[in-house]
Order: sequence, then C-alpha cells, then structure tokens
Amino acid sequence: MSETDTSRPASAPALPKVLAFDVFGTVVDWHGSIVREVSALRLPVDPGQFAIAWRAGYRPAMARVRGGELGWTKIDDLHRMILDDILVKFGLEDMDEAMRRHLNLVWHRLDPWPDAVEGLRRLKSKFTLCTLSNGNLGLLADMAKRAGLPWDLILSAEVFRHYKPDPEAYLGVCEVFDVAPAEMMLVAAHQDDLAAARACGCRAAYVERRFEFGPTLPKDVSPDPANDWHATDFLDLARQLGC
Amino acid sequence: MSETDTSRPASAPALPKVLAFDVFGTVVDWHGSIVREVSALRLPVDPGQFAIAWRAGYRPAMARVRGGELGWTKIDDLHRMILDDILVKFGLEDMDEAMRRHLNLVWHRLDPWPDAVEGLRRLKSKFTLCTLSNGNLGLLADMAKRAGLPWDLILSAEVFRHYKPDPEAYLGVCEVFDVAPAEMMLVAAHQDDLAAARACGCRAAYVERRFEFGPTLPKDVSPDPANDWHATDFLDLARQLGC
Repeated sequence: MSETDTSRPASAPALPKVLAFDVFGTVVDWHGSIVREVSALRLPVDPGQFAIAWRAGYRPAMARVRGGELGWTKIDDLHRMILDDILVKFGLEDMDEAMRRHLNLVWHRLDPWPDAVEGLRRLKSKFTLCTLSNGNLGLLADMAKRAGLPWDLILSAEVFRHYKPDPEAYLGVCEVFDVAPAEMMLVAAHQDDLAAARACGCRAAYVERRFEFGPTLPKDVSPDPANDWHATDFLDLARQLGC
Repeated sequence: MSETDTSRPASAPALPKVLAFDVFGTVVDWHGSIVREVSALRLPVDPGQFAIAWRAGYRPAMARVRGGELGWTKIDDLHRMILDDILVKFGLEDMDEAMRRHLNLVWHRLDPWPDAVEGLRRLKSKFTLCTLSNGNLGLLADMAKRAGLPWDLILSAEVFRHYKPDPEAYLGVCEVFDVAPAEMMLVAAHQDDLAAARACGCRAAYVERRFEFGPTLPKDVSPDPANDWHATDFLDLARQLGC
C-alpha cells in the first residue's frame, strides 16, 4: 500500500494516542518458532502439526477461565495443561518433567515477524506503544527482552484479570493511560479481537499475517471495512500513520 | 566503593535473577524535578518547600488506601488530592483546573539521577530489570518513555492492588517472574522499603541518594548490615554485581 493509498475513511477522527498490540501471531510468529524448537529437539512428530495442535487448545482453555469454570489461570499454566494433553495425542507421554518445563517456555522465546522490531521502533516515535495480550506478564517480558521489542508498557490480561475479548481488557488499557476509548487503537492480525475493541469504542488496525498458521495454511487476510486501518505489516502501518 | 570492597556477606547465596527497583527517589529525582517545574512556572512559592510539602502528603494518603479508609486509588489521584490541599496552604487556591492538571502530571516528567540510565543499561545485560513502585502504570510508562529508562517490565502497586510495604507487592513480583523470593532483589534508597522486602525473603540493595530531599536536607545514608548490598549509585551497584 502506498503512502497515499490508505484505507482511512475521510471522516476519521484525529490519530489515536496509544497503540495496543495483540502479540501472538501479530508481533511474533508462534507457528514458525515452535516448529524451529520442536525440530531442533528432534521430537518424532510433525512440528507444524504439533504447533497447530498446541495453539488449538488455547481458546478452549481461556474459555474455561472466561466462563468461570477455572479460576484465574495464567497462560503459562494453560499452555502446560494443553501440552500435557497433546503429548499423549502425539505419543510423547514419556517426556520427562524437565523437558516439559523447557518446552512449555517456548512461548517466551517466540521470534518476531521480520518487520516487527523496526516497525515498532518507528511507531514509538509518534505513539505510546503497549501490548494487550492474553500472554502473562513474565512471558511477555522475557519475549521482549530476547527479541528487543521496544514497548513503552507491557500490559496483559493478567493485569485486568480478564482475557480478551472481554471488554475489561480493552477498557483497562484506556484507564491505565487515562485516555478515551477513541484515543486507543488495537493493532491485531485477528478480526474478532478487533471487533471486540471496536465494540468498546476503540479504534482498530488490521495487520496481514498471511502465514500465521504456517506456509501451507495461508490465512484469509481480506480487509474488513469496519476497521480504521488495514496494513500489510508494521512498516506499512507506520508509513500510513505518518511515522 | 571499589570492585573488591563490597558489602556482600561471605555467605551470600547466588546472585538474584530479577532486580526490582523502587522509583521515586531511587531512580528519579522528584525533589529537583518539581523544583525545576515550579520555578519555570514562576509560582510565588519556595519551590523546594512546595516539593517537600507535596511529597509529605504521599505516605498518609497511601496509608488511607492501605488501611481500607479509601478504596483502591491510583497515585495520580492521590497526588491530585494532596496538590489541591497544599495549594491552599501555599496561597495558590486560585490556580485554575487546567494548570492543576498540568502541574499534577509533573510526577510523569521526573528526571532520572545522572547515573540511572547508564547504570540500568549495564545491569540489564545480566539481570531482568523491573520497577516495583507505588506509582501507577501510566505514570511509570510516561516517565520511562521520556527519560529512556530501559525496563524489561514496568510493575506497580497498581498491578497487585497493594501499596508497598504490603508483602503482596514484593511477592507479586516473584509470582510474575515465577522465581523464589531469594531470586528477587529490591533496589531502593529507603531502608523501610528494603526491610519489608527482606521480611518477604527477598534480597535487598540500598542505594545512597543523599540529596533526595534537596541539597539543603542531606539524608542519612548509613549502611544497614541487614541489606545484601550497599551502593553509592547504580554504576557502583553494577560494578559490584559484575556488570
């Protein structure tokens, strides 16, 4: 998308002050990173299918917390519950405790998409950047330190004790920065996350991550006109926002 | 203090993994920064006395929250309550709302001590660095962005809904990073804060900030042998910790 070819409607209000980023899939490549580690460990499984299976347990696990079946449980613990489950399905139930703990922390070691660090650096010159992730604070801090993600503030569902798409998560960001919902924009590669942010009065920027689920399962990345912005990556978003 | 002359007891355990920093007075110079802004605004008051009076209201205000008299109230709001009170005492009750709001945010614009940014940068190479401040998240994020403080994670009493010295604040840091209390060290210029951290099983590093209350009221910065480390500033602490 060129500098003049933006999807911003003519009637759009002033630019937001705070950009809140979804993380898994939007900033970092969970699929490629898990494939990398599972391959390096030479586990006798298809690494791509293993990654997909692990991630597939994520929403149902959070739904148990959101619905009240489970008390507040952080993602590290949910990831571990799912891991123990899929190890059986993949015939790896003999994996010892130390290896399970190590493997579970792969989510702290996810690699950023190639444009992410430079895109964030540019956006940071004009906006306050935070995360709004269902990942827990310790996970997000480890990830940012390893990958060099230049957040102004790491925020998490853990702070608000509500997983996205609960409105408390989006509105919690606005409260932390003392801004109106329209002054906060969620940046995400997931239309449902953006729709929940818009329902709170926040603004929404979609970022295409066509290969979030790996090179063999390209995602539909069609624009949704309900969003304020649509960008191919963070560098494109920075360009569109004048950074 | 030289590299060989440390206050670390011979029996000290391995180094901590996480350093949690008190902020007001330890990382940033609240007194000098408020004097700077009050002087620039040409308010007809003694800037140093104004700064001292504002800060003096801080502990009593938090005590009202800690004791349950006030529900959870963030520091921005406590600072504003104190400000409204001292403006009367200093004969400035005519200050308009816009100026009160601007002045109240001086706490977001505090300057770091001269050694702070470089000291943190060195410590970050070896440890995970976070804040553990009674300041709210938005305040700490604004401050870090303006001053270039390289935190790995900004943590606040606001996350734990407990002000220091409540044990929930110190233990909350350990929980976030999934470390034992002995693997976390509080770095502070205040002996009572360090004593509360030690009571939780955490480790403690005192940093001398002799002029926290301004150049005319030097503080007693004597070492307390109960602390694990005693440093003249962050560069000295980094040197002692082998960074």
